[in-house]
Amino acid sequence: MVSGDLVISQAEHKSRIEKIRGLLKKSRCAALYLTNPTRILYATGFSHISTERPLALVIPQEGAIFMMGPHLEEDHVKQDCGLIEEFFNYPDYPGNTHPIRHFVNVLTRKRLAGSKIATDSVDGAAGGWGYRGPSLRDLLHQTKMVDGRDLVDNLRLVKSKQEVLLLKESARWAEKAHDILMGNIAPGEHDALIGLKASYEALTGMMKKLGVRYQQLKWGVSPVVVGFRGQVGPGSAIPHAVFSKRRIRRGDVLVTEAGVEVGGYTSELERTVIVGKAGPREKKYFETMLRAQEAALGTFKPGVACSRVDAAARKEVEAAGLWGALRHHVGHGIGIDGHEPPWLDPGEKTVMRTGMVFSCEPGLYIPGLAGFRHSDTVVITKNGMDFITEYPRSLEKLTV
Amino acid sequence: MVSGDLVISQAEHKSRIEKIRGLLKKSRCAALYLTNPTRILYATGFSHISTERPLALVIPQEGAIFMMGPHLEEDHVKQDCGLIEEFFNYPDYPGNTHPIRHFVNVLTRKRLAGSKIATDSVDGAAGGWGYRGPSLRDLLHQTKMVDGRDLVDNLRLVKSKQEVLLLKESARWAEKAHDILMGNIAPGEHDALIGLKASYEALTGMMKKLGVRYQQLKWGVSPVVVGFRGQVGPGSAIPHAVFSKRRIRRGDVLVTEAGVEVGGYTSELERTVIVGKAGPREKKYFETMLRAQEAALGTFKPGVACSRVDAAARKEVEAAGLWGALRHHVGHGIGIDGHEPPWLDPGEKTVMRTGMVFSCEPGLYIPGLAGFRHSDTVVITKNGMDFITEYPRSLEKLTV
Repeated sequence: MVSGDLVISQAEHKSRIEKIRGLLKKSRCAALYLTNPTRILYATGFSHISTERPLALVIPQEGAIFMMGPHLEEDHVKQDCGLIEEFFNYPDYPGNTHPIRHFVNVLTRKRLAGSKIATDSVDGAAGGWGYRGPSLRDLLHQTKMVDGRDLVDNLRLVKSKQEVLLLKESARWAEKAHDILMGNIAPGEHDALIGLKASYEALTGMMKKLGVRYQQLKWGVSPVVVGFRGQVGPGSAIPHAVFSKRRIRRGDVLVTEAGVEVGGYTSELERTVIVGKAGPREKKYFETMLRAQEAALGTFKPGVACSRVDAAARKEVEAAGLWGALRHHVGHGIGIDGHEPPWLDPGEKTVMRTGMVFSCEPGLYIPGLAGFRHSDTVVITKNGMDFITEYPRSLEKLTV
Repeated sequence: MVSGDLVISQAEHKSRIEKIRGLLKKSRCAALYLTNPTRILYATGFSHISTERPLALVIPQEGAIFMMGPHLEEDHVKQDCGLIEEFFNYPDYPGNTHPIRHFVNVLTRKRLAGSKIATDSVDGAAGGWGYRGPSLRDLLHQTKMVDGRDLVDNLRLVKSKQEVLLLKESARWAEKAHDILMGNIAPGEHDALIGLKASYEALTGMMKKLGVRYQQLKWGVSPVVVGFRGQVGPGSAIPHAVFSKRRIRRGDVLVTEAGVEVGGYTSELERTVIVGKAGPREKKYFETMLRAQEAALGTFKPGVACSRVDAAARKEVEAAGLWGALRHHVGHGIGIDGHEPPWLDPGEKTVMRTGMVFSCEPGLYIPGLAGFRHSDTVVITKNGMDFITEYPRSLEKLTV
């Protein structure tokens, strides 16, 4: 387990900002203007609830990093983030003067209007929950605005040592949470209650052990989420089910999920679990899914195209004559966001690099019967890959 | 409590679609192309987890309603939504052919390319989690694309009887959850654990009572969320705190929140709670906040501008000499989204109409000391307003 703070250090955030500034210089941009909460968290460590109220982080090529946002975030920033040197507030949204017009005034005073700015939103706002407003690009017509999304997102592709440590810490608690979940599965219970109870018990254990070292960064009733998300019995055949229409029964196939946010990062652990005894059909699908995952896991390696991992899994499924049960590709990058590029998809030409982190989760879905999917999180190493999630995968160990 | 199904009826969804078709006819648009999950849920009752994978609902002025999306949502749609008559899938994102190019082919076959289309995204995708793609507008260069957001969002401003019933059902369970929360508050405990335990206990009671009538529509470890979101002691002075840095202590001011999703709708109930005994400063802020809420509540009425509600609360705070403790306006519309227009803000000229639903939540925040905020959900009636949330508001009743 991580011995120090359970967040990315300020030194690493400073180094990320220096990299961003280097890229701004290279592309002759005067500043980077960010609105997306994940990118803001990645750059500075500041996490906020993104709403209809516009909020922007500005990293100039030189000079003070500043934020523009609603008054209600000002004390929050001052308390949580030493890297943001100035905060320019507006009263609230929509206001007598629209927030984006306030932002234009600040950018003008900062002598950034009229220059070239990289941004992740030409609107100037993340734009959730019924937000409307003039586009920043229209108001700053003498300013050249270029797409700055990849400027940050390309840095996020390869995880640092600290990021991998946080993901591993996340996985350790997810494994414990999954053990608790397995111990609570019983016919006659509703999966939502089993999951929520296990989440509570796992969080209790984690808070007891970590104490004030632990800080949840992302909004949610619990940083520990373990459960089934409605993938119960025939519902398990719906990859993105939400809620089960009935209680657990003997013979059900369940697909679990366990994720714990640590320092903004969440690993992904999912298992196919059988309640009682697997029949011959369930066995066949389970074993094929497992072989597909094994094949995919054996393909991770620096220098190999991401599409090859998906192809390896697909080949096993096709050899078993079950290609009709596929519903999605084999996985995705993972970090602060639950899904991130690169994708383990036929169309993904990106070549794997040491430090990239992926979910590996081939799935087979048979409408009316069940779904079968394990998901593990892995990190690419010099010679192949290491598991971030470490949890039994066999039918025997996953029968309750 | 609601006696029938705890979701919007298919008849009401059909009537919403007819209204949308009427508006399309009026604006001479051949179809409405939606990507936002809230708007799709509002129009059809279909709820999905919006990811990097593009998904679009198309409501033509005439003819079959169809959806284009990833293969993994196809069985989900067929199971959950009879109103979506056709589903056109692509294998996955990014794919060998980009999903948006698949969508262009479908729109062309449907003879919608080249016509005038209203949409909530000219990109053609909701665009979460690292999504990249060509813009639909660029690929459909002979098609005129116009902003269709308000076409749906204006319908959402005034709530139907069914919507108000679901919000009231939501509030009844939120009140019970809040009672449980209050009973669990104790010095020495971490607020996150108290909240999660109360959420579990409240969900248990709700599932026991409602059984299979209850269906969670939105993704989340629990449809019942009750807790403090880090607003504990000095942390309560941060309106959008996330997590408490310490356990609850005697003398702390806490700001709670309780929300329960019913049929996609969640009311808002928040209370300022004192642990132990309020000191003179706490009493002054609490009483001023309460007077501000009373003043705001007395202003709700059809025909009155939304800005007036905010002004009434502000006047009370200013009369007490506490304007410096304000951090946000007095509230917002609420429905499927947690925040919706219209806003109770100085800049909001919209006039209130019967059936509009608002949060009413003036807040006072004193950095280093505490924050004070109650939030209630109200519906505008012919003569004024009715409470949707019904819960004690006095200092006496909220001291534990």
